[in-house]
Amino acid sequence: MTAPLGEFDLIARYFTRPVRRAALGVGDDCALLAAPAANEQIAISSDMLVEGRHFLPGADPDALGHKALAVNLSDLAAVGARPHAFTLAIALPEADPRWLEGFARGLFALAEAHDIELVGGDTTRGPRNLCITVLGFVPRGLALLRSGARPGDDLWVSGTVGDARLALGHRLGEWTLDAQTQDSTFPRMDRPEPRVALGLALRNVAQAALDISDGLLADLGHLLRASKVGATVDADACPASAALRSQPLQRRRLCQLAGGDDYELLFTAPPTERNAVAAAAAQAATPVTRIGRIDAEPGLRLIDASGQVLDNVYAGFDHFRTP
Amino acid sequence: MTAPLGEFDLIARYFTRPVRRAALGVGDDCALLAAPAANEQIAISSDMLVEGRHFLPGADPDALGHKALAVNLSDLAAVGARPHAFTLAIALPEADPRWLEGFARGLFALAEAHDIELVGGDTTRGPRNLCITVLGFVPRGLALLRSGARPGDDLWVSGTVGDARLALGHRLGEWTLDAQTQDSTFPRMDRPEPRVALGLALRNVAQAALDISDGLLADLGHLLRASKVGATVDADACPASAALRSQPLQRRRLCQLAGGDDYELLFTAPPTERNAVAAAAAQAATPVTRIGRIDAEPGLRLIDASGQVLDNVYAGFDHFRTP
Repeated sequence: MTAPLGEFDLIARYFTRPVRRAALGVGDDCALLAAPAANEQIAISSDMLVEGRHFLPGADPDALGHKALAVNLSDLAAVGARPHAFTLAIALPEADPRWLEGFARGLFALAEAHDIELVGGDTTRGPRNLCITVLGFVPRGLALLRSGARPGDDLWVSGTVGDARLALGHRLGEWTLDAQTQDSTFPRMDRPEPRVALGLALRNVAQAALDISDGLLADLGHLLRASKVGATVDADACPASAALRSQPLQRRRLCQLAGGDDYELLFTAPPTERNAVAAAAAQAATPVTRIGRIDAEPGLRLIDASGQVLDNVYAGFDHFRTP
Repeated sequence: MTAPLGEFDLIARYFTRPVRRAALGVGDDCALLAAPAANEQIAISSDMLVEGRHFLPGADPDALGHKALAVNLSDLAAVGARPHAFTLAIALPEADPRWLEGFARGLFALAEAHDIELVGGDTTRGPRNLCITVLGFVPRGLALLRSGARPGDDLWVSGTVGDARLALGHRLGEWTLDAQTQDSTFPRMDRPEPRVALGLALRNVAQAALDISDGLLADLGHLLRASKVGATVDADACPASAALRSQPLQRRRLCQLAGGDDYELLFTAPPTERNAVAAAAAQAATPVTRIGRIDAEPGLRLIDASGQVLDNVYAGFDHFRTP
């Protein structure tokens, strides 16, 4: 038997890495970071993941380390900010070395892939809770906001949407997926890839953007309200993976339109920028698909490929209303 | 009956205030902040408070709002940074308007007192957990670090220490306090006052600093290890409130030397700076007391007023070791 792992050993062993850019990393009362360039702004966002709410008890710690940072990087991606540094505050029921090793591995692998460094935080005992705050830098005036959409803009989405919700439905027992579909969709739920490169490439191209976490139509609603505009969305134009395309239509629509957790970017750009959007997508090696247009008339109109109007029954996730 | 409060209403109603300095506050994927001056660094820190660990179930929400921000401001104070902005990520078992009103009142009252603004965050359902990340600015090279103590430095502490631990002991049933002592000590535990003004005033005066959260001697240990020095502390010199001075000696020493949660600053300065320390204390309207000296010899020597060596039995708090 080894002695129980203490709080300070835990921080030293799993969460202290030499910093490359920060003037001072983990271990003092604050971390110290160099200021961004004079023409830049600081972008900051915090996301909290709670066991039993955002992930199931027994979830793979490596995937959790990835996801806890990924959902935060996705917020930087959504405004077109360059990732810079993050803090991690974590509550754990016990200091389990195996869990901590896995979590740190997943966390730092994604951090290194996006050149963002862990500079500080907090560890405490408690019901499992992962709270990350990310800092990024973005040139003043170039951040992509929810409020920038204009009537006539094209509406675009990155990658494919709905796989995370398809995986969740299997785990919740709503439907059963074959082994191959599980293999292709579980990673979309467990290890979302934040679209950081696309956010950067869209800086001078897109008018408005946000990331899809609550559901495509629900998040689009946030963008429409912030921009004081409406939209028409072609449900059949929403990009789906091969796995999702083989599902029954009703399930496919639910997953694509109401499913969150894909962390794709939803953005608008004027039709004159279609070539620029394509170039940004190519530069970021991220496919994008046009799924509708922004209207002056408020509200959201959902249609299918034939132009038939569909009922919008695809409410998004609300942490205090969704059971 | 009113409809249950949703996540987005909750944010809008309780946590959205117009920002004065930030370019963009609550409501987008990230907040956007102006960069600090070119000669400044960004100081950042996160602290997480967990129900049942950092506060008792049923704790006054107004006091919790105060304390959640206060412990974070105390980290900025400890490095001498000027508070700038903060994010709040909060997990709650339910959206209780009365609780939220109280919490927001305590939070914003302290935020306004220290001219720091809430710019973003996250709300979710889950076991009650309050995670705040603070950002401050400090001129490059002037931050007060744990690693700056030098042999020969005086060791100083602000205010008085031990009242929060005295209050905690009553609440845990370790001892019983009379009503007057409860009235004078409970606020020290529930509403600590971060020593922000003192931290700023000590920027060009102190060599090293940190805030006392785990216990005076335990936190001093962190400073000594970071600075690779030792210290001699006079237990009888440690400043105590009138309430604590009337307690039995053994209890008083325990509260002062092992008690955390007072959020006073512990700092070192060369003896040549005694007048400057006094001037900084006067400027910040915060009393300070000299309680020992930094030694070249490693380790911590605890003495009483007569010079008698005392056993150091005052281990600090460790979230994964302390029951």
